[in-house]
Amino acid sequence: MHERIKQSFGKQGLMETLKAKLTEIKRGQVKITCKFSEALTQQHGFFHAGVVTSIVDSACGYAALTMMPDNAEVLTIEFKINFMKPAKTDKLIAIGKVLQSGKTLTVCEGYIYDSKEEKLIAKMTATMIAIQQ
Amino acid sequence: MHERIKQSFGKQGLMETLKAKLTEIKRGQVKITCKFSEALTQQHGFFHAGVVTSIVDSACGYAALTMMPDNAEVLTIEFKINFMKPAKTDKLIAIGKVLQSGKTLTVCEGYIYDSKEEKLIAKMTATMIAIQQ
Amino acid sequence: MHERIKQSFGKQGLMETLKAKLTEIKRGQVKITCKFSEALTQQHGFFHAGVVTSIVDSACGYAALTMMPDNAEVLTIEFKINFMKPAKTDKLIAIGKVLQSGKTLTVCEGYIYDSKEEKLIAKMTATMIAIQQ
Amino acid sequence: MHERIKQSFGKQGLMETLKAKLTEIKRGQVKITCKFSEALTQQHGFFHAGVVTSIVDSACGYAALTMMPDNAEVLTIEFKINFMKPAKTDKLIAIGKVLQSGKTLTVCEGYIYDSKEEKLIAKMTATMIAIQQ
Repeated sequence: MHERIKQSFGKQGLMETLKAKLTEIKRGQVKITCKFSEALTQQHGFFHAGVVTSIVDSACGYAALTMMPDNAEVLTIEFKINFMKPAKTDKLIAIGKVLQSGKTLTVCEGYIYDSKEEKLIAKMTATMIAIQQ
Repeated sequence: MHERIKQSFGKQGLMETLKAKLTEIKRGQVKITCKFSEALTQQHGFFHAGVVTSIVDSACGYAALTMMPDNAEVLTIEFKINFMKPAKTDKLIAIGKVLQSGKTLTVCEGYIYDSKEEKLIAKMTATMIAIQQ
Repeated sequence: MHERIKQSFGKQGLMETLKAKLTEIKRGQVKITCKFSEALTQQHGFFHAGVVTSIVDSACGYAALTMMPDNAEVLTIEFKINFMKPAKTDKLIAIGKVLQSGKTLTVCEGYIYDSKEEKLIAKMTATMIAIQQ
Repeated sequence: MHERIKQSFGKQGLMETLKAKLTEIKRGQVKITCKFSEALTQQHGFFHAGVVTSIVDSACGYAALTMMPDNAEVLTIEFKINFMKPAKTDKLIAIGKVLQSGKTLTVCEGYIYDSKEEKLIAKMTATMIAIQQ
């Protein structure tokens, strides 16, 4: 599973564009980090909400995949995210965690922290679907 | 207002990284487009959900800003997005529309279409807040 | 289908408790109304958000069901609702509309209006799943 | 604050209609329970999603209020809820918890459990606003 997730992550052109890194994969939980750069900003010079969302969506998707059968693919059906603090940090840490996994649907929670993993910048709830290949 | 939005958009490093373009600004509605490139993909070679989300969030934010006083800034409080069709197109078209504008809060709806503006790829509902400078 | 939906609605104890009425069923759209009473209030004497949500969730669910095969049942996976104006009216009108229907999943939009269908009180986006019996 | 919340809860006609009870108030957390009755069902005889939503929305609102100034009122701006298991229990237990509290906005998480507080039936994320009276 680890190998499959690493390979899949490696194929995501956007993750390379954002220079995001897959730093942890365990059953039900995946962590992705992303260093600050001016290429990733909104108009005030902080991380753009879109970067925050992109990496936490990927973290939730792969967390869901860790609970699915080997031949399954995962797709995001929908998510909701609350932005609670400015994304003003030198590195974003996104953690996706499975809250409920079923045969078809998986519900994940995503957390975005600052580089010290102390300040909760945003919180996501995502619904994922398993696609049998 | 048009000038302010163009300048603000120009300061978003992420929009330049995604090569997104601001193509329409009118009262209560803003359109942003983004051409396909391999730098923007998920693992199956389509647009990553994060790109879809980034540009429609920006479109909603600027749509909200068109209804706010001149000295206001806009921040995204939260949004929810449903992905309805694969983002398999040569260009994404994101449209942000104001559904309800108040003194403090503005609710927007965001639509992501394919390049012909025929296929609805995703739908967002976003809550924005006006920050007085 | 009309008959099935009426029977199903009739079995919802909550709809009777709220004295909600099913007033329109057409392909992809269902309308439910609910008259004001003190039994349905929040602390300021208007309709409770829970009443608004209950009837628009039912309207979305049945709207989804109109697009599903005859032997399917519908379940709400998740929804998000924005409350835009106080629910201060003598009758709530809830309209559920199908935005996208698929074999497994259906995305609906729900609207809650005042008794004149002029003021948009709340807006829902809901994801429904078809369960084959 | 406890007294204010009890009085406010007492004024919610809907909570009486649902026979919901306010069973815990502490700083940042409120618990509301609701016994099963046929008056609260959906078409399969379980608790209606609307009942689940009504009591967890109230729990989140009052949890937010525990963190606000004494003269503030609380309103729900929006929420999102995922239904994860059938609401098949003799009593619902709803817990609202503050995730982030600010001067204007408060983000809460709501949990709905079965009567043993073991099975997580649904999960809510809600945004509340403080209204100065």
